[in-house]
Amino acid sequence: MPKMCARLSCGRDFHCVPDINTALDTACKSGFDFVCLPLVNPRYRREFMNGPAKNRPGALTRSDMVVSSQDWSSLIVGKVSPWLQNDSKIDTVRKNSDAALRQELKYAAHLGMPAIMVPLKSRSILNLARCLNEHMLGSYFQQQFWVQVPLVAPWDQRDEVIEGLDSGDSPTEDTWEWWHLFRTLCDCNKRLGVCLEMTADLPCESVLERWLSEPIKTVTISTNLFLTNKKGYPVLSKAHQGFLRRLFRLDAQLILTGVDRHPDKGIRAYQQYLDHLWQNQTPPDAISQFARGYEDYLQSPLQPLMDNLESQTYEIFEKDPIKYSQYQKAIYYALLDKIKPDEKDTKSVIVMVVGAGRGPLVRAAIAAASQADRKIKKLYAVEKNPNAVVTLENLKDEMWGEQVDVISCDMRFWEAPEKTDILVSELLGSFGDNELSPECLDGAQRFLKDDGISIPCKYTSYLAPIQSAKLYNEVRQCKEKDKGPEAPFEMPYVVRLHNCQILSEPQKVFTFVHPNKDEVIDNSRYKSLDFIISNDCVLHGFAGYFDCILFGHVTLSIVPATHSPGMFSWFPILFPIKRPLLLKKESQVVLDIWRLCTDKNVWYEWAIQDPIALSIHNPKGRSYTIGL
Amino acid sequence: MPKMCARLSCGRDFHCVPDINTALDTACKSGFDFVCLPLVNPRYRREFMNGPAKNRPGALTRSDMVVSSQDWSSLIVGKVSPWLQNDSKIDTVRKNSDAALRQELKYAAHLGMPAIMVPLKSRSILNLARCLNEHMLGSYFQQQFWVQVPLVAPWDQRDEVIEGLDSGDSPTEDTWEWWHLFRTLCDCNKRLGVCLEMTADLPCESVLERWLSEPIKTVTISTNLFLTNKKGYPVLSKAHQGFLRRLFRLDAQLILTGVDRHPDKGIRAYQQYLDHLWQNQTPPDAISQFARGYEDYLQSPLQPLMDNLESQTYEIFEKDPIKYSQYQKAIYYALLDKIKPDEKDTKSVIVMVVGAGRGPLVRAAIAAASQADRKIKKLYAVEKNPNAVVTLENLKDEMWGEQVDVISCDMRFWEAPEKTDILVSELLGSFGDNELSPECLDGAQRFLKDDGISIPCKYTSYLAPIQSAKLYNEVRQCKEKDKGPEAPFEMPYVVRLHNCQILSEPQKVFTFVHPNKDEVIDNSRYKSLDFIISNDCVLHGFAGYFDCILFGHVTLSIVPATHSPGMFSWFPILFPIKRPLLLKKESQVVLDIWRLCTDKNVWYEWAIQDPIALSIHNPKGRSYTIGL
Repeated sequence: MPKMCARLSCGRDFHCVPDINTALDTACKSGFDFVCLPLVNPRYRREFMNGPAKNRPGALTRSDMVVSSQDWSSLIVGKVSPWLQNDSKIDTVRKNSDAALRQELKYAAHLGMPAIMVPLKSRSILNLARCLNEHMLGSYFQQQFWVQVPLVAPWDQRDEVIEGLDSGDSPTEDTWEWWHLFRTLCDCNKRLGVCLEMTADLPCESVLERWLSEPIKTVTISTNLFLTNKKGYPVLSKAHQGFLRRLFRLDAQLILTGVDRHPDKGIRAYQQYLDHLWQNQTPPDAISQFARGYEDYLQSPLQPLMDNLESQTYEIFEKDPIKYSQYQKAIYYALLDKIKPDEKDTKSVIVMVVGAGRGPLVRAAIAAASQADRKIKKLYAVEKNPNAVVTLENLKDEMWGEQVDVISCDMRFWEAPEKTDILVSELLGSFGDNELSPECLDGAQRFLKDDGISIPCKYTSYLAPIQSAKLYNEVRQCKEKDKGPEAPFEMPYVVRLHNCQILSEPQKVFTFVHPNKDEVIDNSRYKSLDFIISNDCVLHGFAGYFDCILFGHVTLSIVPATHSPGMFSWFPILFPIKRPLLLKKESQVVLDIWRLCTDKNVWYEWAIQDPIALSIHNPKGRSYTIGL
Repeated sequence: MPKMCARLSCGRDFHCVPDINTALDTACKSGFDFVCLPLVNPRYRREFMNGPAKNRPGALTRSDMVVSSQDWSSLIVGKVSPWLQNDSKIDTVRKNSDAALRQELKYAAHLGMPAIMVPLKSRSILNLARCLNEHMLGSYFQQQFWVQVPLVAPWDQRDEVIEGLDSGDSPTEDTWEWWHLFRTLCDCNKRLGVCLEMTADLPCESVLERWLSEPIKTVTISTNLFLTNKKGYPVLSKAHQGFLRRLFRLDAQLILTGVDRHPDKGIRAYQQYLDHLWQNQTPPDAISQFARGYEDYLQSPLQPLMDNLESQTYEIFEKDPIKYSQYQKAIYYALLDKIKPDEKDTKSVIVMVVGAGRGPLVRAAIAAASQADRKIKKLYAVEKNPNAVVTLENLKDEMWGEQVDVISCDMRFWEAPEKTDILVSELLGSFGDNELSPECLDGAQRFLKDDGISIPCKYTSYLAPIQSAKLYNEVRQCKEKDKGPEAPFEMPYVVRLHNCQILSEPQKVFTFVHPNKDEVIDNSRYKSLDFIISNDCVLHGFAGYFDCILFGHVTLSIVPATHSPGMFSWFPILFPIKRPLLLKKESQVVLDIWRLCTDKNVWYEWAIQDPIALSIHNPKGRSYTIGL
């Protein structure tokens, strides 16, 4: 699970470092956490092929012994030489650059530096990618590479006032494409992160948002981006502040580069300002707080039919402040619906909670009856997990008494002694039906009266295309033994989506209604969805959600636009796809998805047909099924 | 890497717990860290087959909600019911016990308890093992099982005074065999640990030592083992104290069981006494301090010929307080040998350090010359790692000057400008020749004068059979992709041996002498070793060591009996075997080991022929070779 930083981590970039210990000392005294410095003197241009420097004696660079290995590995980020031209058209220049890069990368690995900065200066990065990829495959040590990309290409950063030109219709280059090309060539290696160079002008919102779905490790901020406030201190523009705040949520570190332009305040003033921005972030909402540490962390969906939940799992879910109050509200209205005001002293109802767990819905029903001033004649708490039954039996003994009957049985096989007026269940998964609520409730509705109420009565799943290099890499790592290499891409994951971008509005997928009055009940489904993508991007998979009507107007939702405020019981679900797909602006993504059933299992299959076809995911449930 | 405890962890055992919170509170106030308590009321004997209790209503046991899941999972160890007889000859008794055990184990998993105590009461444990094994395979959750074994069987613990018998020749039962049988049946599952029951009488030293090679997680100590000191406080006998101190080194936790027999002092007095013993352990020696955290942690042997060492690795090895002072001493005597006192103003010598790294042997040679008042005309520092050459070049610039020539070259291919008087190298591995010192020095001796000295001049490897369930499991886990399931057992590991027992004295294996004056140099070797095992035990592999003569009487050794005091540069090496072998007292173990060479690689093969034969390990170097 990822750790959250408790404070801003900010580094100081140096262009030339005559003495490392002085640099470390200066940076540390100004409040910085680490330094970035050239691996080799920037002016030491080596000549491996020919030229006067070829046989120059002496050391390549300073000795490793000037700093302890502890400091090398925690405080110092290396920068490769600025003069390297690994994609030069001139053979000797390219070869010389390759040899020098190799030497620098090996020396950086020798020093055990935590990260190395490698700049992309244009789209000509093929050979640079090859060199770095070769180096990563050859070294076991998990050093990070921070690939520097400017938010706006240097040649698009011209000063309009001076040039007197309107840049509106001049072609601009998308620097994100440099990064995308580079990481694609390097097979999306996990050790590659983005070091985003903040520029004076910011690109449009859609470009910024796309960057927020990339693994941004650091952001460089030049001192010349700073303005001066009334008191003479360096500050950033509102636009820069706003984008930085969004980057903070990704735990991005900052790197201050450039000379001190406020010498009377000192370089410390910049660090203090950046730290001030960090300290003054909007505090996270309740769901974000609950989800802390779970961002982009993949979990297998629960299989509550096959497995029994653990005590701790019940405990966490029971803490949801919204879910059970919504249930109580729904039961309240259902009771009012079943017993009119004039019947309240003469009539009473049967309520069954199927899948009672440790009793939160039993408590909700009892509270709703008291609130509605209606009588529940008998409340059946049906639960198949014998461990949870221990809790229910104890609650009956100590609190509920004769009104409640605890039934230690699977609802699908229970022989009920009477029919019920209200059937309450909480069997929904992140994708609605994915914990087999339809199959369970179809089984249980035989003991629901003809005019009985099911809570919930209707639910719908949703899907939306997403971009997230982080999640793609997380999925790729989920190799399971005894399963093929495609298996991780053929199963859904429950995950708190964080370092990702939704590419198009969620669309409805499957709907189920209870009780199901169809003559022949068929819970298989098939849907084809058609999404329009507004910007260039990469498709990595689909985010799944659900909403549900408990009763009347009482609902639950985890669909972003209608999310029940403060409810944390469900994270979204992720359906991955096998290959990242580069999508151009205005392109159409067509996803087909099936819900398939046998007597023993339920599973999903999904397929992309447009813009290009991929082989069907999870055919015959070969990688993932949900057991009945 | 395993963590070392910073303080004693001690639990309190309860036989009957009417209220958990009171028990937790009492134990906590008396200084205990956790409690052990029955999962189900010990008197609640369930009847699954038939009998009056079969349809008894009500909860199996107390509710999980009486304690938070945080507390269940950190403070409470469960005990299975004492009345279970899973190996009863009576079918219904056995079946009923199995059903009850299953119910209790599942409930314990539901609660998320960190560990469950399962007692072994005799050698009849086959069916108990089957039940527990089934449970472990069916649960993903990594709960531990503490298998309780008495140090002495109950029926061997008779009071000789009362019975008036000499127990000297009465047959006694070896309780270790219960444990060994049990864990073998459960395929040495890592989740099984020993909970050793301390008994009034202790078995003989060889039995105690064997226990110290087992994964002992906890030790139960009954209050009735305590004596009363002059001040009326509970204390343990010297024998018990001594054994406990040895158990502390394995990070074993303690559990105090039984009623308070010193009620005026309170149960806290027991905990304080045990903590006092823990606090007053002999402080670890220099090597143990250095090795802290590396106990039983497997490392792949370095391959310094194929790979380049990192800055941090050099830094650690350079800190050895003994190794380089021994080298300096050896060079001192070699200089005195080469230059007689009357020649000291007229004669000087050439010294070559081959594999100079970051220069520690260069420093040692310069210091030795000054100490010996002899002149080194030229000191060549030959190093193939270009990253270390950066350090050497810097040292030459700043300190050594013209006396030292830094040669960035592999010693095997270097064309030396002159021959040397003294050739100094540090190429030895934990098993002597395993980092290919013989091959390197054979290559380098072409530039050693005919009467030149090699430091080191001779080294020998050693092997000893060992028992260690912990290391067996560690090896088993080292699965590498693209390699067969046997691969982890076909390679040696460098490891700080800790939870293990040496079964017989180390014996010499291979010896190499430098310079090698043989007409045809052949570094392949073959040796058959014959060990006599004094006690019943399990063979898990062989510990490897080396000793070496640097020059004259100056030596280095990691063989336990002659270990150079305070030298930490080398941990032992471990050669595993594929299957644990149960050995009976006085049995003979015959190990054959080969050192095999091609132009590209060197590797070892090894085979057991007695007491039973196992297939040859690492044939043709299929799992492990050392690259030239």
